[in-house]
Amino acid sequence: MTRAEHTEIACSIARSADVIGDAWTPLILRDVHLGIDTFNELVRDLGISRALLTARLRTLVAGGILHEQPYQERPVRRRYLLTEAGSELIPVLVALMRWGDRWRSPDGAPLVFTHDCGAQLETAVVCIACGDAAHPGTLHPAAGPGGRSGPGTRVIAERLALVPEFAPQPEETP
Amino acid sequence: MTRAEHTEIACSIARSADVIGDAWTPLILRDVHLGIDTFNELVRDLGISRALLTARLRTLVAGGILHEQPYQERPVRRRYLLTEAGSELIPVLVALMRWGDRWRSPDGAPLVFTHDCGAQLETAVVCIACGDAAHPGTLHPAAGPGGRSGPGTRVIAERLALVPEFAPQPEETP
Repeated sequence: MTRAEHTEIACSIARSADVIGDAWTPLILRDVHLGIDTFNELVRDLGISRALLTARLRTLVAGGILHEQPYQERPVRRRYLLTEAGSELIPVLVALMRWGDRWRSPDGAPLVFTHDCGAQLETAVVCIACGDAAHPGTLHPAAGPGGRSGPGTRVIAERLALVPEFAPQPEETP
Repeated sequence: MTRAEHTEIACSIARSADVIGDAWTPLILRDVHLGIDTFNELVRDLGISRALLTARLRTLVAGGILHEQPYQERPVRRRYLLTEAGSELIPVLVALMRWGDRWRSPDGAPLVFTHDCGAQLETAVVCIACGDAAHPGTLHPAAGPGGRSGPGTRVIAERLALVPEFAPQPEETP
């Protein structure tokens, strides 16, 4: 399965992971969020090759995640800003960062955020209707309007067609 | 920079993205969460080659994200379960899925979750202290105990050393 075919999977995890499913892309978005937003500063921060950064930035701009803003005319210099879609990825990356802090950072968190409320940020992914955490055991899947069967969803589609809410583990089926 | 060097960056986004920064891994975790948890069912759902799935599962088990559980003796069959670390990735993937629903799914969400509370799940990444969303503009970065300067954090480290809370965009500094 090629990368193009992969994004054809009727799954929003596949489609969004395609956006950040690259070693550099999450770090570029991290940097732009932190105001490290010019080509040269990105190269200097990341130690990435200029060719690779050019390619990644082009993809992010084409994908509607970043946009370019000229900030100097002679010579022309531009910086990169998050679009609305890009901004909405930041909380997801912050949640991912907190996972890395907990499970992959024996020396402690490399970077900490203070939230506007004054607390050192600890995140939860919650259901906005009730405010409770979206823990794995609290989620009951069903096919959505864009669902279809195919590579990447073949068994899921079968199960969702049979039982609208199938339990995560067979022996836990009510 | 090699993949091994990439995980050496003092950044929890780099370290956690390394876990799911692969086209297949988020979908394998999605499937195991949904109870599609045996080797053969994963192959059938994903259309992934057996060799590639074997490699990905081995990495996820070695990384403490999945563990194997035998459920039949003759012939030996095993299924894959999420560890605690793996379970904690699921809400992050669900938040990523919701981003993909909004920004990459013109036909509508392929999969919808009903939350335990009865609402169709819409997620937010929130600060657990105040319950408000961890929007980009509400986050003030500082160096943490595991922070250090090096490729991947060179400019960040400079800026955090100079100004404990530097604003994301210069002109938006209060």
